Amino acid sequence: MRILFVGDVVGRTGRTAIADHLPGMIRDWSLDLVVVNGENSAGGFGITEAIYQELLDAGADAVTLGNHAWNQKEALVFIERAPRLIRPLNFPRHSPGRGATLVDTKSGKRALVINAIGRVFMEPSSNDPFSAIERELEACPLREGCDAIVLDFHAEATSEKQGVGFFCDGRVSLVVGTHTHVPTADHQVLPGGTAYMSDAGMTGDYDSVIGMQKEEPLQRFLTGIPSGRFEPAGGVATLSGIAVETDDATGLAVKVAPVRAGGRLEPAVPGFWT
Amino acid sequence: MRILFVGDVVGRTGRTAIADHLPGMIRDWSLDLVVVNGENSAGGFGITEAIYQELLDAGADAVTLGNHAWNQKEALVFIERAPRLIRPLNFPRHSPGRGATLVDTKSGKRALVINAIGRVFMEPSSNDPFSAIERELEACPLREGCDAIVLDFHAEATSEKQGVGFFCDGRVSLVVGTHTHVPTADHQVLPGGTAYMSDAGMTGDYDSVIGMQKEEPLQRFLTGIPSGRFEPAGGVATLSGIAVETDDATGLAVKVAPVRAGGRLEPAVPGFWT
Amino acid sequence: MRILFVGDVVGRTGRTAIADHLPGMIRDWSLDLVVVNGENSAGGFGITEAIYQELLDAGADAVTLGNHAWNQKEALVFIERAPRLIRPLNFPRHSPGRGATLVDTKSGKRALVINAIGRVFMEPSSNDPFSAIERELEACPLREGCDAIVLDFHAEATSEKQGVGFFCDGRVSLVVGTHTHVPTADHQVLPGGTAYMSDAGMTGDYDSVIGMQKEEPLQRFLTGIPSGRFEPAGGVATLSGIAVETDDATGLAVKVAPVRAGGRLEPAVPGFWT
Amino acid sequence: MRILFVGDVVGRTGRTAIADHLPGMIRDWSLDLVVVNGENSAGGFGITEAIYQELLDAGADAVTLGNHAWNQKEALVFIERAPRLIRPLNFPRHSPGRGATLVDTKSGKRALVINAIGRVFMEPSSNDPFSAIERELEACPLREGCDAIVLDFHAEATSEKQGVGFFCDGRVSLVVGTHTHVPTADHQVLPGGTAYMSDAGMTGDYDSVIGMQKEEPLQRFLTGIPSGRFEPAGGVATLSGIAVETDDATGLAVKVAPVRAGGRLEPAVPGFWT
Ligand SMILES: [Fe+2]
Ligand SMILES: [Fe+2]
Ligand SMILES: [Fe+2]
Ligand SMILES: [Fe+2]
Ligand SMILES: [Fe+2]
Ligand SMILES: [Fe+2]
Ligand SMILES: [Fe+2]
Ligand SMILES: [Fe+2]
Repeated sequence: MRILFVGDVVGRTGRTAIADHLPGMIRDWSLDLVVVNGENSAGGFGITEAIYQELLDAGADAVTLGNHAWNQKEALVFIERAPRLIRPLNFPRHSPGRGATLVDTKSGKRALVINAIGRVFMEPSSNDPFSAIERELEACPLREGCDAIVLDFHAEATSEKQGVGFFCDGRVSLVVGTHTHVPTADHQVLPGGTAYMSDAGMTGDYDSVIGMQKEEPLQRFLTGIPSGRFEPAGGVATLSGIAVETDDATGLAVKVAPVRAGGRLEPAVPGFWT
Repeated sequence: MRILFVGDVVGRTGRTAIADHLPGMIRDWSLDLVVVNGENSAGGFGITEAIYQELLDAGADAVTLGNHAWNQKEALVFIERAPRLIRPLNFPRHSPGRGATLVDTKSGKRALVINAIGRVFMEPSSNDPFSAIERELEACPLREGCDAIVLDFHAEATSEKQGVGFFCDGRVSLVVGTHTHVPTADHQVLPGGTAYMSDAGMTGDYDSVIGMQKEEPLQRFLTGIPSGRFEPAGGVATLSGIAVETDDATGLAVKVAPVRAGGRLEPAVPGFWT
Repeated sequence: MRILFVGDVVGRTGRTAIADHLPGMIRDWSLDLVVVNGENSAGGFGITEAIYQELLDAGADAVTLGNHAWNQKEALVFIERAPRLIRPLNFPRHSPGRGATLVDTKSGKRALVINAIGRVFMEPSSNDPFSAIERELEACPLREGCDAIVLDFHAEATSEKQGVGFFCDGRVSLVVGTHTHVPTADHQVLPGGTAYMSDAGMTGDYDSVIGMQKEEPLQRFLTGIPSGRFEPAGGVATLSGIAVETDDATGLAVKVAPVRAGGRLEPAVPGFWT
Repeated sequence: MRILFVGDVVGRTGRTAIADHLPGMIRDWSLDLVVVNGENSAGGFGITEAIYQELLDAGADAVTLGNHAWNQKEALVFIERAPRLIRPLNFPRHSPGRGATLVDTKSGKRALVINAIGRVFMEPSSNDPFSAIERELEACPLREGCDAIVLDFHAEATSEKQGVGFFCDGRVSLVVGTHTHVPTADHQVLPGGTAYMSDAGMTGDYDSVIGMQKEEPLQRFLTGIPSGRFEPAGGVATLSGIAVETDDATGLAVKVAPVRAGGRLEPAVPGFWT
């Protein structure tokens, strides 16, 4: 199976990058499954129903979230009727929506997509992601319950991300981190067969502070004083993510590569598909 | 000028990677300046005088540190007689050692190397890195005071790292982050001419949790209970860092590329030097 | 019912204060129920089986813990055979021991004692205390399931403690905070009938930094560098806690007062029992 | 000298408590010096010039601040013409205002009032409070430079507060903590002669979550989702603070007692003045 995961789409420029690049990637690379993190897609903060639909229209099979899940209040409501939108599964009990979803891939296979959130350096605190992930994997194991499993682990600390990676190794097709808005270069297939990358990076303007115009965050660092709102930077975005090819017999990864297109970052394409 | 910065060397396997790869890189790429972060070089925690000397012998012109600076108590003493060893300049007043040093490069130029530490998600807290960096840059400005400036900003949060990057843009040759032990893929020359990468990555075994054997950190994540010490992982290390070419007239960056050699990560060499 | 809760017993001097004062208080005030936080009773860090027994022998009906629960490794084992020792109920799944216990009081009534831990400013992070507490209260409601409920909420932030207080108001006899090692003076009966105090204070030497000899913590604040271990201060301890009288018909609080005896703090006795 | 320090005044109800109680206390107890923390006096967030004047009119000789100093933007400007308003002295370089002020007491003596802010569990991070305090004490030592020194240390962690207390012991008349909005009961004269209390408590409505109406904070604890703004609770406030009598020969403390008047908390008056 050919899987593409795309990191946090930030604001209008990020959505433009999705519209510009994603349909071509799906076509050119014959992708089976596309997962997009949309927690910053609406003005940098949260997601609306219209934007969720826009991401599906561009080719996303599932949309994941993170700590910014509820920044747009309508998400608390429409998530209930949005089966392909998932929020961290270790959010508080009684949170709206769900933390995992089974999707039919473009090639008719079944993929489990999970979203979980870290606890190290994350506020407010969430429930234990490890035991929450464990329960999902027990309920729908790779091969028996589905043909592929993609886990978006939305977290700050590399140690916690790598911990989740090894915890899932051999049981999940891809563990990919999000949240730092910077792509890492540590993509690899772990010893047990799980593709791993600490962070997919953001799909946004990299002439910015994590996707936001630089002036306000820099001012806050210098003075400790907010003087305005954070606004998404508007330069051309880089679509940033990770490509994985799995073995249909095992559901595990055989190849992994970074994907970067447009904007300021050095481009990257998965050589094994081109 | 040709500059190589190498990220946190972790334990014996990291030092072996330095010995194996660094001399060849210096020779093959005609490097002028090599800076190595050594905060984890002694068993994963801190640095000893013998290891500091070992890093110099392998070709480092300066060695930077971070939150693990003093894990080996002897560092509190020998740093006073180690002019090329620097610790974060925004450490508490009266800390031993210094936070910046002027070194003569292999080609006889003068380079200012600065080490600073972040405050977001870092314990214990340090003094304001921005004003500390400002003072250094005022005291020894690029071109007037030196031919190149390299800043190792040891920090957790990508936002703070990017904030420092833009704060220094046009005034520093290279701002490179360390501390997360994972290389990022956001290397770029910022609009003002400063080379930037959020994290250089570690020089260590990437089949690990930030360089440490996986079992103990994973156990702590699952149970919250320490059951032993952290021990460096012993697999073959990847040397991870960043290469920068500066314009001798301005001291600013014209080219930047990641460097990765050995171990599990995808190799990377600066195409512009080969 | 007459209830006494005693805050974190720190080291030998804290245990001496328990031995010196608790038996007399039980006798003089005809106490029905005594709960003691023992997370620092063994050399300042954790608890041993011998010390647990010592606290019971002095009159404790239940012993609660906190973030230091497992500092003495034997606690991981003996807690399984120690029915009156409880650790935070929102610890990770599969943690040894239990987070609540029903005890027969000295007067033959039944009291539910619960221990939970906060998440704001607490490391490592725990599961949601609110929903964990909710489940306990549903399983054993006041009056139907027991005659009194005491909740030791071990937490740092006053906001989270007060949040738990109001969350439990009318459903719990006493919500008392622990962990800061400083008694607060905000004891009150909340509008719904729950006795509340943000922190019971420690039972330890108040010529110290939270029960520890001052030199090492002060040195760390000044330099950021550990230079030795934390050792409990050895001056005469103040027993510090809170006294509550409940209405037998409702199980709710009618009177509340601080208790302080010995050492450096101003003494306090519940006037309504003397 | 007779000194009264009053903790964080929260909103309108807090200001009413000041107006109702402070003038009588000054008169009845013949106070020489009154310091009031005003960081929450304007609707719970920050301070305005009108409210600053109101606090002076009620008898405050100096007004201190904390992490909420700049919540009302006008404070950034009017603090420059408000000599008796001080903000934490370890705020970033170039912050407006000052962190210490010499005031003439009601009896014609000279008192140095200092405001500093902690770093443990405080965001955003500030510069080292210990070395900043050290510089102030060197510049204006007790007895040589002034007749009394009052330090408002605005911080979360009891360990850091006690650390500052012992650091100043023998050099400052009173070290009092603020910020947690809950009064502590650990008032004492430290071995060297400095009066100390970990937190003065807030001057606000104690039927609240740290002065705010309960519903919104409780909702956030339960769901992690903000659903509105924090609004100050409006019930009758308790004025909460600490009374100190110093020895005119040494400037050090001889007596210390908590002060609480009005509202829900148990009243407290300094017996030594009545
Ligand atoms: Fe994001
Ligand atoms: Fe995020
Ligand atoms: Fe490191
Ligand atoms: Fe580090
Ligand atoms: Fe404790
Ligand atoms: Fe504790
Ligand atoms: Fe406050
Ligand atoms: Fe505050």
